Amino acid sequence: MYQRILIANRGEIALRVIRACREMGVGVVAIYSEGDRGANYLELADAAYCVGPAKAADSYLKIANVISAAEVGNVEAIHPGYGFLSENAHFNEVCRSCNIDFIGPSPEAMAKLGDKNAAREIARAANVPVVPGSDGCITDENEAIRFAHEVGFPVLIKATAGGGGRGMRVASNDLSLKSALQQARAEAEAAFGNGAVYLEKYVENPRHVEVQVLADLHGNVVHLYERDCSTQRRHQKLIEESPSPNVSPETRAAMCEAAVRLIKHANYTNAATVEFIVDGSNNFYFIEVNARIQVEHPVSELISGVDLIKAQIRIAAGEPLWFTQDDIQPRGHAIECRINAEDPSQNFRPSPGRIERLIVPGGFGVRFDSHAHSGYVVPPHYDSMIGKLLVHQPTREEAIAVMLRALQELKVDGIKTTKPLHQEILSHTAFHEARIDTKFVERTFTN
Amino acid sequence: MYQRILIANRGEIALRVIRACREMGVGVVAIYSEGDRGANYLELADAAYCVGPAKAADSYLKIANVISAAEVGNVEAIHPGYGFLSENAHFNEVCRSCNIDFIGPSPEAMAKLGDKNAAREIARAANVPVVPGSDGCITDENEAIRFAHEVGFPVLIKATAGGGGRGMRVASNDLSLKSALQQARAEAEAAFGNGAVYLEKYVENPRHVEVQVLADLHGNVVHLYERDCSTQRRHQKLIEESPSPNVSPETRAAMCEAAVRLIKHANYTNAATVEFIVDGSNNFYFIEVNARIQVEHPVSELISGVDLIKAQIRIAAGEPLWFTQDDIQPRGHAIECRINAEDPSQNFRPSPGRIERLIVPGGFGVRFDSHAHSGYVVPPHYDSMIGKLLVHQPTREEAIAVMLRALQELKVDGIKTTKPLHQEILSHTAFHEARIDTKFVERTFTN
Repeated sequence: MYQRILIANRGEIALRVIRACREMGVGVVAIYSEGDRGANYLELADAAYCVGPAKAADSYLKIANVISAAEVGNVEAIHPGYGFLSENAHFNEVCRSCNIDFIGPSPEAMAKLGDKNAAREIARAANVPVVPGSDGCITDENEAIRFAHEVGFPVLIKATAGGGGRGMRVASNDLSLKSALQQARAEAEAAFGNGAVYLEKYVENPRHVEVQVLADLHGNVVHLYERDCSTQRRHQKLIEESPSPNVSPETRAAMCEAAVRLIKHANYTNAATVEFIVDGSNNFYFIEVNARIQVEHPVSELISGVDLIKAQIRIAAGEPLWFTQDDIQPRGHAIECRINAEDPSQNFRPSPGRIERLIVPGGFGVRFDSHAHSGYVVPPHYDSMIGKLLVHQPTREEAIAVMLRALQELKVDGIKTTKPLHQEILSHTAFHEARIDTKFVERTFTN
Repeated sequence: MYQRILIANRGEIALRVIRACREMGVGVVAIYSEGDRGANYLELADAAYCVGPAKAADSYLKIANVISAAEVGNVEAIHPGYGFLSENAHFNEVCRSCNIDFIGPSPEAMAKLGDKNAAREIARAANVPVVPGSDGCITDENEAIRFAHEVGFPVLIKATAGGGGRGMRVASNDLSLKSALQQARAEAEAAFGNGAVYLEKYVENPRHVEVQVLADLHGNVVHLYERDCSTQRRHQKLIEESPSPNVSPETRAAMCEAAVRLIKHANYTNAATVEFIVDGSNNFYFIEVNARIQVEHPVSELISGVDLIKAQIRIAAGEPLWFTQDDIQPRGHAIECRINAEDPSQNFRPSPGRIERLIVPGGFGVRFDSHAHSGYVVPPHYDSMIGKLLVHQPTREEAIAVMLRALQELKVDGIKTTKPLHQEILSHTAFHEARIDTKFVERTFTN
């Protein structure tokens, strides 16, 4: 096991990794920007180094500064957390060239899965269903129409270099396809300097379901079942849960096996999330692999009893997985609500500032992961997530009831948070009846 | 299910019951003394009534006032919590005469098991081992000496009406027995108005192990395995854990079965704890039944996945147990540390006052049950427990590591707490090696 690692991140996930290290007896070095100087969680690390000004581009994203901190801190490995440098294959390579273990996949596996077309190729080769697509750029109107007629309307136009919904259009007939193609190309060119687009069959009212996988350096690959992240607002996940209330036992089994096949085929190691969309008839299609730990990982921890951060560290250090697939017997139902410092009445504008008083709910099956506390000042420079409220109960209905109780108890005085939206969603009949897809929130709630 | 119940208690357990009610959709009425007026947790109840001055004898213990609140609140049942009126068979009877369900055993079962000699009789009849004892009051010195010679020194003198170590003495020869008998009688007379004492064989270096049982109104009795509460200081439990690190699988099975037999034999219903002492050779002896929910109940909740407060309420309302013994598959290891507002450097003198800031630990397998929060004022009138820090991990070694991490994160600024003692105990080799008995803390730590 490592003597000492560095957590190249901030806030909740930095604290999460520091906790795991302390519990494992592994030394841990933190980094901070000037915007996070003095944060309480830094005191729990064995050392903490400033890596630059508040702006992430000048600190948490500055590879040279992070590597310097790792060298000064004399660490053997770096945990990248999520966001920031966590899916940056170049950073991953730099770590390797400095003889520092990257707690995640190899740069090669990361680069391969980071390219969406390459990832689709791997999926196909591993016999994992993908959404029928044009297999390469579409440059010609007629080619696009031929494809649409082949798979059937509606179809989705996507930028090859895309992300965040830019360069993306839905078309439901020949005419709208022609104009959407032009618009998508122009938007992609403007946004990414690359106007290349491709086409996919458009899955209507899709559910976002992802499978958590762990793969060690010895060829063992185990999944920890799925998480349903359909409850989103503008492509941002709000609520995640496991098991998914909308997949059949057969689909669940097939999807989890497909995820393991894909990860094996890609020679991928460490923690990964394999994302799928599921349509109304329980057909599932591979979307992409998240080559890192995810925000919502505690949902899987609750149902499986496996500490995913400790697993990541042990895997990177060369330990074989200490459990088999059969040992993973999921228990109960888990739900996570992301508590963001945002003002729901102001179109979810960030609401940084001083938390005058934080009251944390407790009790049977309640977990609150947060670096915030009474007196903590939420800086304006970063992601607005300040905590993850989780519940674990025997059934989904009980989990919803406990989450509503816990949300009522949670008090974050001094700033605005997404708590009221969560209360609305969890009180809504459609959520109770699991009539959720990725458009459910936007369709149902005016804000 | 009930429409509305009353929680006849305060602080942590009042909040615990309020939480369960909210989650079940059951209305809940709280009571408070003038010393607890304005406490935050009261806001989570549907109504809250003042039952008198701060002194417990004038409020929480005042049966007429509690019943009045129940009648004004129009409740169908009363949950007594622990302490206060929870083991008062008279109060239990008054509830019955007012047509209010007492969420606990019948007054008859409570009275029977509340009498230690009667409880021993029931245990013997149910073929549950008891410590060899004098079977009734000892009034005569010579009778005491005869008994001691029969079972062998050392012997324990206990007050029939006793509790909390008062009226209790150990004697290891004829001479010390004579003086101990006199002292115990005088102390019992002063403390309980009843100087009656009895004798038992004294088990040296005993472990305190108790079995959690649930019994419904339809004859179903299930145990939720054991808790080891050997880590005590002056007969006050400090740390509880499950499974017990010091009983063999055979002893565990025999002890749990014995507890179920006893509860069945006593026609006892609702939640009970059957307390045993276990000697160094894995012999176990019945001590007493706690006819109520206990402080340390969440330890069993963590390993079993059963919400004990909800179970109590459902049982009282007439629901049959919704699981069988086979469904209870204990998972992992749970530990609880009681966080008391006491000053370890001042011989654990109570340390009431304002909590300027409370920082609550979170993360994988951590639970904190507390009515306290930043700004809460701990009143000087009641028990000093302000919170229960719990961890649940795959193994005991991991649970200890996580508890130490969580204790480090827990900050209670403004008052003194027992946190440093817990840190000392959990860091001690003897605790890691489970070399614990009820004298371990006093023997090992100077304070």
